[in-house]
Formats: sequence, C-alpha cells, structure tokens
Amino acid sequence: MFYHIKELQYNAKPERPDPVYAKKLQEILGGQYGEMSVMVQYLFQGWNCRAEKKYRDMLLDIGTEEIAHVEMLATMIAQLLDGAPVKEQEAAAKDPIIHAAMGGMNPQHVIVGGLGAKPDDSTGYPWNSRYTIASGNLLADFRANLNAESQGRLQAVRLYEMTDDPGVRDMLSFMIARDTMHQNQWLAAIAEIEQKEGLVVPATFNRENEKQEVSYSFMNYSKGTESAAGRWASGASMDGKGQFEYIENPEAMGQIPNLAPAPVYVHGTLPGSPPPMQ
Amino acid sequence: MFYHIKELQYNAKPERPDPVYAKKLQEILGGQYGEMSVMVQYLFQGWNCRAEKKYRDMLLDIGTEEIAHVEMLATMIAQLLDGAPVKEQEAAAKDPIIHAAMGGMNPQHVIVGGLGAKPDDSTGYPWNSRYTIASGNLLADFRANLNAESQGRLQAVRLYEMTDDPGVRDMLSFMIARDTMHQNQWLAAIAEIEQKEGLVVPATFNRENEKQEVSYSFMNYSKGTESAAGRWASGASMDGKGQFEYIENPEAMGQIPNLAPAPVYVHGTLPGSPPPMQ
Amino acid sequence: MFYHIKELQYNAKPERPDPVYAKKLQEILGGQYGEMSVMVQYLFQGWNCRAEKKYRDMLLDIGTEEIAHVEMLATMIAQLLDGAPVKEQEAAAKDPIIHAAMGGMNPQHVIVGGLGAKPDDSTGYPWNSRYTIASGNLLADFRANLNAESQGRLQAVRLYEMTDDPGVRDMLSFMIARDTMHQNQWLAAIAEIEQKEGLVVPATFNRENEKQEVSYSFMNYSKGTESAAGRWASGASMDGKGQFEYIENPEAMGQIPNLAPAPVYVHGTLPGSPPPMQ
Amino acid sequence: MFYHIKELQYNAKPERPDPVYAKKLQEILGGQYGEMSVMVQYLFQGWNCRAEKKYRDMLLDIGTEEIAHVEMLATMIAQLLDGAPVKEQEAAAKDPIIHAAMGGMNPQHVIVGGLGAKPDDSTGYPWNSRYTIASGNLLADFRANLNAESQGRLQAVRLYEMTDDPGVRDMLSFMIARDTMHQNQWLAAIAEIEQKEGLVVPATFNRENEKQEVSYSFMNYSKGTESAAGRWASGASMDGKGQFEYIENPEAMGQIPNLAPAPVYVHGTLPGSPPPMQ
Amino acid sequence: MFYHIKELQYNAKPERPDPVYAKKLQEILGGQYGEMSVMVQYLFQGWNCRAEKKYRDMLLDIGTEEIAHVEMLATMIAQLLDGAPVKEQEAAAKDPIIHAAMGGMNPQHVIVGGLGAKPDDSTGYPWNSRYTIASGNLLADFRANLNAESQGRLQAVRLYEMTDDPGVRDMLSFMIARDTMHQNQWLAAIAEIEQKEGLVVPATFNRENEKQEVSYSFMNYSKGTESAAGRWASGASMDGKGQFEYIENPEAMGQIPNLAPAPVYVHGTLPGSPPPMQ
Amino acid sequence: MFYHIKELQYNAKPERPDPVYAKKLQEILGGQYGEMSVMVQYLFQGWNCRAEKKYRDMLLDIGTEEIAHVEMLATMIAQLLDGAPVKEQEAAAKDPIIHAAMGGMNPQHVIVGGLGAKPDDSTGYPWNSRYTIASGNLLADFRANLNAESQGRLQAVRLYEMTDDPGVRDMLSFMIARDTMHQNQWLAAIAEIEQKEGLVVPATFNRENEKQEVSYSFMNYSKGTESAAGRWASGASMDGKGQFEYIENPEAMGQIPNLAPAPVYVHGTLPGSPPPMQ
Repeated sequence: MFYHIKELQYNAKPERPDPVYAKKLQEILGGQYGEMSVMVQYLFQGWNCRAEKKYRDMLLDIGTEEIAHVEMLATMIAQLLDGAPVKEQEAAAKDPIIHAAMGGMNPQHVIVGGLGAKPDDSTGYPWNSRYTIASGNLLADFRANLNAESQGRLQAVRLYEMTDDPGVRDMLSFMIARDTMHQNQWLAAIAEIEQKEGLVVPATFNRENEKQEVSYSFMNYSKGTESAAGRWASGASMDGKGQFEYIENPEAMGQIPNLAPAPVYVHGTLPGSPPPMQ
Repeated sequence: MFYHIKELQYNAKPERPDPVYAKKLQEILGGQYGEMSVMVQYLFQGWNCRAEKKYRDMLLDIGTEEIAHVEMLATMIAQLLDGAPVKEQEAAAKDPIIHAAMGGMNPQHVIVGGLGAKPDDSTGYPWNSRYTIASGNLLADFRANLNAESQGRLQAVRLYEMTDDPGVRDMLSFMIARDTMHQNQWLAAIAEIEQKEGLVVPATFNRENEKQEVSYSFMNYSKGTESAAGRWASGASMDGKGQFEYIENPEAMGQIPNLAPAPVYVHGTLPGSPPPMQ
Repeated sequence: MFYHIKELQYNAKPERPDPVYAKKLQEILGGQYGEMSVMVQYLFQGWNCRAEKKYRDMLLDIGTEEIAHVEMLATMIAQLLDGAPVKEQEAAAKDPIIHAAMGGMNPQHVIVGGLGAKPDDSTGYPWNSRYTIASGNLLADFRANLNAESQGRLQAVRLYEMTDDPGVRDMLSFMIARDTMHQNQWLAAIAEIEQKEGLVVPATFNRENEKQEVSYSFMNYSKGTESAAGRWASGASMDGKGQFEYIENPEAMGQIPNLAPAPVYVHGTLPGSPPPMQ
Repeated sequence: MFYHIKELQYNAKPERPDPVYAKKLQEILGGQYGEMSVMVQYLFQGWNCRAEKKYRDMLLDIGTEEIAHVEMLATMIAQLLDGAPVKEQEAAAKDPIIHAAMGGMNPQHVIVGGLGAKPDDSTGYPWNSRYTIASGNLLADFRANLNAESQGRLQAVRLYEMTDDPGVRDMLSFMIARDTMHQNQWLAAIAEIEQKEGLVVPATFNRENEKQEVSYSFMNYSKGTESAAGRWASGASMDGKGQFEYIENPEAMGQIPNLAPAPVYVHGTLPGSPPPMQ
Repeated sequence: MFYHIKELQYNAKPERPDPVYAKKLQEILGGQYGEMSVMVQYLFQGWNCRAEKKYRDMLLDIGTEEIAHVEMLATMIAQLLDGAPVKEQEAAAKDPIIHAAMGGMNPQHVIVGGLGAKPDDSTGYPWNSRYTIASGNLLADFRANLNAESQGRLQAVRLYEMTDDPGVRDMLSFMIARDTMHQNQWLAAIAEIEQKEGLVVPATFNRENEKQEVSYSFMNYSKGTESAAGRWASGASMDGKGQFEYIENPEAMGQIPNLAPAPVYVHGTLPGSPPPMQ
Repeated sequence: MFYHIKELQYNAKPERPDPVYAKKLQEILGGQYGEMSVMVQYLFQGWNCRAEKKYRDMLLDIGTEEIAHVEMLATMIAQLLDGAPVKEQEAAAKDPIIHAAMGGMNPQHVIVGGLGAKPDDSTGYPWNSRYTIASGNLLADFRANLNAESQGRLQAVRLYEMTDDPGVRDMLSFMIARDTMHQNQWLAAIAEIEQKEGLVVPATFNRENEKQEVSYSFMNYSKGTESAAGRWASGASMDGKGQFEYIENPEAMGQIPNLAPAPVYVHGTLPGSPPPMQ
C-alpha cells in the first residue's frame, strides 16, 4: 500500500516557459527508458519477487522513488507549457521564432492535455508496458535495471545540454545524481548475486545440456577481421570456464531447409501444379 | 552488404509436429527479447557506430549471426506446424487432447500464415522496434546487449524445459550455448570500456554539475529496513568515488506544486468560478 | 447495410491552405477521442446490442452520422494540404515562416499520403480500436459515450481557437453544435437507464457479495486533508444507499505478501543459494 | 513524493493455483479499464491540475489508492501461477483438463515472467498510456473517470462470476466495493461542477459561435424510427437550453467535395492523362 | 454522408454457438486484412481522391459495402458467443471439451465485450490504421487493394475449412464471392490505368533520374542459382523498356562507411580515449 | 546463414548535414512501406516457402538485398545528423531558420539515438511486424510485394523531390532504379503463377462453394452512377469466367439482426427491466 505527501522529492521550478523543450523532456518521463519504465519495472519485479525479502524491499523502495520522479517531471512539463502561444490571433504568433516554436510543439500538449504533461515520449508515442521486464531471475533483471539507468542518465545528460534554463538544469542535476546512485546500486546488487551464482544467466541450467563446443567462440560473419582485436576474441572467458576462440571463417552446421507441402485445405502454394479443387 | 547461404547455421529438425509448442517458441523469435530484437539492435548499433572500427565490425558480425538465428527458428516453427489439425471435420478434432491443442494454437498460424512462422511473440503480438536501442554510447548499449542475452538465454532455457522433442532440444542447446558466448562477449566488451571510462554512463558528464550529495544515498521509501542488508546500502560505492549511505527516513526536498491558471482559451477548469464566456 | 450520398453533411471549405493546421486537425479525426473513435464505438455498441430495439437503432443512427463527420474532416484536411511547400527548391522554402511550416507539418501528409488525410492523430500515431468500448452494458457504455463527446467537444473548441480561417471555423461550429447535442443525448439516455437500474454499474450484482463496509469510504492516502472539502467526503452517497465517510488515516487490511518459491525448472531466483543444477 | 508499506490494502490469498484464471485476471490489472489505467489517469490529472487544491488532493489520494490495487492484483496473479504445469514431462500434462489448462495459459506467464504478473491485459496485449486522459477540464475528466469505474466494476463482477475460489472472490468483493465508492465519488464530483458550470463541456465556449440550429436535433440516419422512442428525441434538452427535435429525414447541408489537383511533383494520380515527365 | 438500413447485406445466422470459432472469425473482421481494413482504406482513398470522379465514386461505393461486411461479421460473432460457458460453476465446465473451449476463447469476449464482437483480430490485437494506405497514386493503391482482397479471400476460405456450421459457411460463401468480384474489380481498374500510364509506379518520375544500369538486374545474393530459373531473370522486362539480366555475383558499388565523431556534448562513445569532461 | 561485407551496396554520401531531412528519410527506412518491411516480408516468405525451390531462393536473394538497403539508409541518416544544432547555447540556435530546424527534427535522433538512425518512420513511430505478410500463398504474397514496391518507389520519388542535395539524390536514384526492377520482378513472378492458377486467389477453392450470383456484380451503394463508367462495371470479368454487372440499386439480402439476451451472469443490459439480483 502507498501514501503520498504533497512536497516533491526535489524542486521542479523552471525559470521560464519553453513548450518546445517540454516536448523533448517527455522522453525521460514516458519514453522507452523514461521514469515510467523504471517505476513499473521495479514495482513489478518487487511484487513478483520470490527471493530473499531484502530484494523485494529494495525493489519496492526504488520503485516508489521512481513514482516521485514521474511526478517531478510532470510538474516541470506543466510549467514549461505555461503561456504557450496556442491562439493563432495573438500577435506573438507572427514572430518567426514563435511560429517555429508552435510548429515544434507537441500539438497534443494543447489539444488533448490542455497544457499538461502526458505519459508519452518526445515524439508523442504512448508509453507501453513492453518497455519493462520482470523475469523472476534477479541477475537477469538487475542487468535490465543497470541498462535502464545507464540509458536514462545518458538521456538526462543530453537534455541538460539542450537547455540553459537554470531551474530545469537544477532539477536534472538531481535526477542525474540519482541515476549515478542507481547505476551504483545495480552494480552492487549484480556483484552480490554473481558472486553466488556465477556470471551466466540462468545459473541453474545444466551446462552439459548446451552445445559446449560453441559456448566460447566468436564467429566472424564478415570479410575482414577487425573484430579480432577485442577482449572477446581471445583469452580466458569472463565466466572463467573456457577460452575465447576466434573463428575467422565460420561454416554452416545445419541442414538446407526443405519444408513439407501443406495440406490442400490450407490453400497455400505447393510444388508442382495447383491441386485439383476439392 | 549481405550474402545468404542455403544451409542453416545449425540443425532445426523437430522429431514431430507440435503446433501449441510452435506458438510458444515464437517468443524467442519475435518477442521483446527474441532474436529479431538482438538482430536489429546489433545491426543498428553497428551502422551508427562512431567509435573504433573493431566495435563496428564486432557488432555487425554478431548482428549478422542473429539473422541466422531468426532463420533457424522460423524453419523450426514451420515444421512444428506441419499437419496441424485445422479442419474441423477431421476425426482427430473430436479427441479432447487434440481439441485442446486447437484451442491452444495461435489461430494466425493457420489463417494468416498458412502454417508458417510469424515475426510475432508467443501471444501473437507483433515485434516492434521500440524493443531495441542504439544510443551512440557503447557502454550503455553493451549493457543493453548483456541484458538481452541474459533474458534471451533464460527464455530459451525455459522453452527447453517445456518440450521433450529431441530435435527441438538439440537446436535449443545450440542457441543456449551461443547465448553463453554472447553473455561472455558483452561482459568482455563492457570490461574493456569500463576500464577506460569508469563505471558510470556517460563518463563525459562533469560530475560537478550533478547534485553530488545524493549520488550515493539509498533512500528507504518504505516502512521497515530490510533493504539495508544489501551491498548497495553501505561500504564504498562501486565506482570508487563515494560511500553508500542508507537514508532510513528520506525527507522531501522540493516545493509543493502550484500550477498557474491556464489561459481562458484553453478551456480547462480554473480555480474559482468558470470565466465569463469569451 | 449502408448507403452513401455525395454531399457532405455540412460544408468543409477552408479559405486557404494551412498544412501545419492540417496536422493538428488530425487529432479530432483519428485521435483517441476523434470521430473515428465514436464512429467505431457507436457502431459496435449497436451491432452487439441485446437490449430494446430503440437503443440499437439510436446507436446505429449516431454511428452512421459519425462516418459523415470523418468524411468532412478528411475533406477539410485534404484541402488544407493543397499547395504545401514540399519541394525544397521552391523559393518560398527560403522564407523562415514557410520553413517553420515545413518543419511543423506531418511529413507523412506528403510522403505517404500525397496530400491526403490520414486515419491518424495529430502526432501521426495511428488510430487503434482499443480507443473504443462496447461492453454489452448500456449504462457503462453511455457513460463512455458522454465522456467521448465531452473530450471531443473540448478538443474541437481548442482547435477553433487555434485558427482564424473562417471556413474551418464554420465547419467546427457545426461539429461543436453536434457535440452539444450528443452530450445532451447521452445525458438523456443515461437518465432513462439510471431511473430504472440505479446509479451503480452493473445494477445486477448482488450487493451482499461486495465488501460493503468500504463501499462509501473516501480514503485519504496523503498527508493533509484538502480532499475532505468535496461533496464526495460527506453526506448521503449519490446512489442513496449509504453515507460518505472520510477516512483520514486509512489502515492496511491485508497480508504482507510472501510468495512461494517457484519450481526449479522455472530458473528464477529463489531464497537461499541457487539450487544444484538439474 | 510517495511511501510504501508492506501490507496490502486488502487480502490477496487464493485458495489454490489456477493459471488459466490468472490470465483472465490480467484484464483488470493491465487492460483498457484495468487498475493501471485508473492509477495513471488519476495521478496525471492530479499532477496537471490547475483548479482548486481540493481536486488535486482528491485525485492524488485516489490515484495513490489505485497503485495499491495494482499491487493486490499482481500478488494474487503470482500466487495463481504457483505450480503451473509448465514442464512437458510431468505426468499431469497428460490429463486432458490439465492439457487444456496449459493451452489456455498465457505462455508469457512462464517464458517471460517466470510465474509473475505482467502489466498486460487478458490477451497478453501490453498496457499503454493512450488508455488514459488528463485534459485539464475536470468535468470532462471526471466523466472519463466515472466511465472507467463503471467499466472496471463490470469487468470485476464478470471475473467474480468466472471463479469459485473463495480467496479470489474475497479480494474481488473488496475491489467491487471500492468501485461502488469510486462511481459514487465521481458522480458527486460531477454534480458539484455541473451545478457551477452547466452540463455541456466545455462551459466556457461562447454558444453563439456554434451552429445552434443543430444543437438539439436527433438525426435519424436510418430507415425506420425506433430511435424516436427515447428521451433524447423529444422534450426539453438536458442542459435546459433547448428542445430535443427528431429529424426523421436529415438532409445533407454541405458541398459535394471537389479536390484540386496536386502539384505534379507529388506524383499522385490526377484527372486526365498523366502529366508529361518533369 | 451515409444512411443505414436495418437489414444485413446477406444473412448471418449460425446454426449453433461456437465461442472458439468466434475468436478465429475475428481475424477477417479486425485483422490486418479484415473488413475494417478495406473499409477504412477504400473510404480514405475515395475521400482523398483528386482524379476523375468515377474513381472517387467507385471507391466510396465499395468502401460503403465494406461497412456492411463488418456489420455481418459482428452480428455473426455475437451469435457464436451466445451461451458461452463462462461461469465456472456450471456443470458443463467440467467436461474436457468444454473446458478446452473455455481455454480457447478470447477472454475479452466475455470480460470486456459481454458476448459481443470486438474490432480486433484473432489474437485479440486491436485493429489499427497503419494497416491501410491511401497514397494519392491510384495505381499504387489499387495494387494495395488487389492484395487486400487476395489475402482476404484466402483467409475467408481457410475459415470456411475450419467450420462445418452451415450458417457460417453460407455467410462465408457470400463474402468469398464478393472477394472474387473485388479481385476482378481491382484487376480491371489496374488494367485501365496501366494502359494509360505504364506498369511502373509512379509513371511521372523521369527515368533519366534513376540509375538505369540497375533497373532490370536480378541480383543473386546467395550461393547457388536456383533463382535464375524464373521469368524475372531473363527476357524482356515486363514494362517493355528493358531486358532482365541475372547477376550471379553482384559486387558492392558503395563506400565503406566511416562516420564522423559526434560533438562531445552528445556524450556518445568516440574513437580513442573519452574526451575530458566539459 | 548470412555473411556481411563492409562496403555498401551503393554510395550513401550526403553533401551536407540536414537533420530535418534525416527525419523525413526515416519513412523509407522504418515506415509502413520502408526497407525494413520488405526485408522482413521477403525473408519470412522465403523461410516459410513450401513451393518450388526457385521461389524460396529468389525470395531470400531479394530479402538479403533489402538488408543492404536498410544499411545504406541508416548510414545516410547518421551523416545527415552530423553537426545537428542540439545545444541550446550555440549562437546558431538564435537564427530563425536553424531554430525551425531544431523544432522540425525528431528529438529522439539526439536524445535517444545520439545522432544515429532509428528503426522508426518519419513521425517517430516504431516499425512493427504487422506491416508484413507471408501467407503461404505465393500469388497473394507477390501481389503484396508488388504493392510494397509500388508504394516504396512512390515514397522514394517524393523524397527525391524534397531535397536538392546531390549525394542524397544519387543514393535515391539507385534505390528508385532497384524499385523499378523489383516492380518488374513481381510482375513477372505474378504472370508466371497466374498463367498456371488463374487470377483469383486462392485458386484451389471450389467455386461451387461460393455464392456465384454475386461473384461479378458491382454494387452501387451511393446516389449517382459515376462508378458505372469504369472497366469494372461491364464486359467480361478479368478472370474470364463471368460478366461484370452493374447493380444500380442493390437490395439487402439478409435478416434484420435480433440478438438473444445474454445470460444474467454476464451483467449486460437486457430487454425489459433489469433482472432481479442473483
């Protein structure tokens, strides 16, 4: 169960409206790696957690924080939309810069949202739950989380570069710092599990059931061997259980496919003449 | 540019048809973490790569391999659909097990695909490109890739458990082994970059511009402190630049939001009585 | 069955082209609350109707009218796109206002639609049928319809404010008037059913099977009690069967979740050490 | 900002697993009118609210409650999935009823979610934010909310009928009761605003700017006049500002469309012969 | 503008309910190539038509017919859902065949639709407008239409094979016949335009601006030359303006890509060491 | 299995950056009829092919070529994004033309992609697999392919008109030429199959099972008979098996629908008073 308090986690006070930037800022609210994604991802990982209590609790702590991040962004966006030049007749709309701004806005910020934030990304595409994962395997999911916080901080940093409004930058500086923590947090949680289970997900599948002769081979499916120069192409494998091998000219190991004809009543095209009508 | 050869990378030969399993196997072809996702993700990361040549080459090598994985799965699914009991009048359809199978199939495997594989997931939901990321920042993207291979191997392993067809298992044992390699590969590539750039993405943002007092704090947004027991709650931070701190009762640091009224011509609800009609 | 006549229900004659406005006008054609939504919603409610004939007939009358509204909007948009400055070489494209217009257009209006309307919204997002509902319960559905006409008229009014083209405004003045009627119509139909069935949907569920002690309680899940000041927090309930009650500090009534470990062959993370490999 | 407590708002304890029912129950978690929809809808309406504080507070109270409803449903679904017969080799899988169950499950509950709930609906379709609205006009939005609670209670009641598990029914009896309250709550809030602003949304548009001659006309776009029998076809209009009128044979009032040819460089089909190549 | 009459275009009277088949039949109502697709496609092609009046009129005639097809399918599906065994307690639900049926149904047919048709496909995926095209170029679009009617008739025929209900088959025999006509119709319309404009779309692009040396070459991007055996590999080209040529070993004609480094403030990975922090 | 070579199929070298055009060019990369669509469509048609080997080989040849087209477009777009004015502080951003450009860009090209191409269309909408078809019936599918190449060439030609960059035009002139070939190729393949099977898809359905009295009738569902002037309205049918007939006033041939009441436990609205509560 949840409670709300009226104060924001941190300030969200722009110095001035900027409706075009409001559109861009939607990316980290409702985009693929926006705050809604981590909010839903962490909450569902927590609710579905069948492991030690500390993981469930930690996931729900951070998931609950992310709701507050969505709240800060929504509040910021609503203020950036204040006074958007939406009415054609206004003198300002004749100014080329303002006209460009009107073209660069998300029209739904006015028509649908009445100058409010939307749970969408910077192109107006709606947030959807296929952005999230809760697999029941924490090592896999913590890697998803580390990725989400890495992409998220990268996007926040880019948005920081795209404005010089000190109020917006102040809020972003807070969110970027939290992303620093969250990257560190998932790195710590990953380290803890990897120490117990090893590096390969899932740890519980019997390796004898995999085709081990290709478990450590880098296959060079292109002309040229620039790809041989990386750590992944030679030396001990990262999981400590094999040696990387570079296959310069990988050969096919499978059959040439040869599908059987379908039953006539499927009405597909078959080899030879079309079958007599049934 | 690309070339095709007719042999599969590895065998895809089921022992017998199984149309209900064909539906399930679609998950790792066209699902969120299926082979189409890694195929498109790696190819776009390679095509957009502005870093050293070895990264571009490596990304395109593995992206090219993933096209072959989609091909193997499509071939397998087409064969699992052979002889699906689609015609109501067939005697077999009266058998409860077969009837259940007909109910458990993806109806589009017959109606739309004519007993062919589809670029969709196990619920019939179409693959879409928001499953993928190519951010231009390789450390972020390699973490996305490590996650994709972790979720992908987990799903392949679960599908291995859900069948006892030796031909299907043989193919999966190959794909699981490749996922072992690919997890190792991304771990290696990540290690290489982290050594140069440090652990926090992006490395190039000046830390003085982030709100450093919250860069290493775990905030306990719940009653109870089970979450204090993890590595993330105390000790040196993973990036070596701070100390984890556990904030048992985090306080709000921001304002209570107070949005300005919208212009009358937006026709939203404002404080007080409705404005006179314009 | 349906027939078409060539005249529009009302005039759709813009005074001059305006391709940026054409993009915005798409919202009420193919957006969440656009004319396609009410068209499909009313038609399916009518086709699925198992109640008195007058409801089916009324639903199909208004659904049929909405096809004509889509037609008017499509016609208007096609004319607003006339002469859009799509060819780079044209002198006009060097003018900043025109350049802004080109940036503010929906590029698909040219590339995909060849200066024609699209069944999409103002961000270019395609219309989809999850915007609609036909539940078989008319009171529920008429409330959906009242909502759709309320949002629809609001959006049309906002679009009216965003243009000063008298031809566009003339058409919108007609559609806004029809939305006035349609709000009145659904209010009338709702009143008729509420009188027979009462206010709570569905009327036919035995109230003894619901947890009646919480059927009229407003729960204040936040610090502060501003929410106590509304009609919903005290007095007789609207359905006349209870008294609103304001719970200032709602307590949890449920268990602390404790999920059982999953079977090993699901390969999730379990409490304790990872299980031995199978 | 938000806090979490570990207890659920109400009990979520099924008597026994039932993975097919788990799939169905997803509808009111992640479907069009599921708890995620009202959660996001109420939170965004609150965050964007520019009206009196009591509305913002009330919206955030109920939005915060809905997060707890998602939590209860996720917890319930995870338990209904306990012990799902996912492994082909198990003897149970040979039983026709169990086999049907396996066919009737959502395969992603195992393959993707590892026996956890998903933020999806009962067909496996992901939740997306176009299910929600926050328009800035509270009367419009409260009608959306009343509709959502009406559809939501209807669906919960149907799901109640589809199980006889006393634990599931107990939880649903709580959620159905809350939906009773929430319908009453929105009815109360609507009544409060309608009293101030009148019935037609938005109240602030000058009626002289709408085509008032069609503001109260029911247009019979079909053969037969069954639709004349309803309250919407005669008598005073609901908003008290007109008289309903039944137009038995509505005539077209608009032009026959006649679109201008497109510029040649758009390469569409024009009247007459194709233009000479440029 | 449109009118409705109450009779269906043709009978839609199943002999008995069959809720699993109802789910399958949704494919040709709301699937990629279902009747909603052709309805919306033809109507928008008509409304956007800038060519001779006969094309606009013909497109709107057939688009109007397709609304009636959606109506027939919706009516049929509602009846196939009559008496679906949705209530768990019913004795029938213990029967394995019926149990399978319950698993094989679309759960939304009960929970969301209350035994009504939905504007979705056979997997429950919603219809969306990206299934349609109206390009302004009639030859291109008539090819789209011919394809839609070909896929549509194929799917209707497959569904005919999947039932033995004489009432369903009767309705399908009508729709299959109309698809025969519609394939013939688009073939006729295509022939008419091809005669005037030639075979290649668009006719109006100056061929001198295309790289004519590759305008008739079949490129064999695979080992083996089975593809040389077709009509497309030799002889006069279909448009009569060239000779097909078979390139057995096509060579790359382009550069090796070499992207410039991005500006530092984009925070991507660049060649060499990471730049100093700004 | 597939191999990659580093050279592009043809040059992709713009003369200068143009980030607004980069957004537009996305349409033929990741739009409904972009190169990703034909790539996936041809590959799946090939992999699922149960007909003669030459068709499978041909489909995979052309599918493999299309991967190279996606590669060329991605490379071009990345270069068009070079030096995009993304940083607010830059002096250039004060220039109205540049400001318009910033508003006209796809913001995700910077925030998400770091100046890289995306697998999306020109509105930022993600590519999805419902754009493709592989039905198992080659005549149907080749018509889909002909349509895709017709729409694709039309879009490429429109994009050619929208730029005067000689490098972009050079690449487009190559792609337009390949589309000329591909239209010719599908016309050839269609001719080959039509000769064997006839014109109507599928050929294998017994025509006696269709309602032949309406197999060649054009039904005029509108007032006015402009549609009688086309080839489709009179003369021999294209398939040579009937005569086109123009039905000026088509009559309904079906019943007036009359749905049975639903069971009470579905809680829909039924005729008459609401049933007593259960």
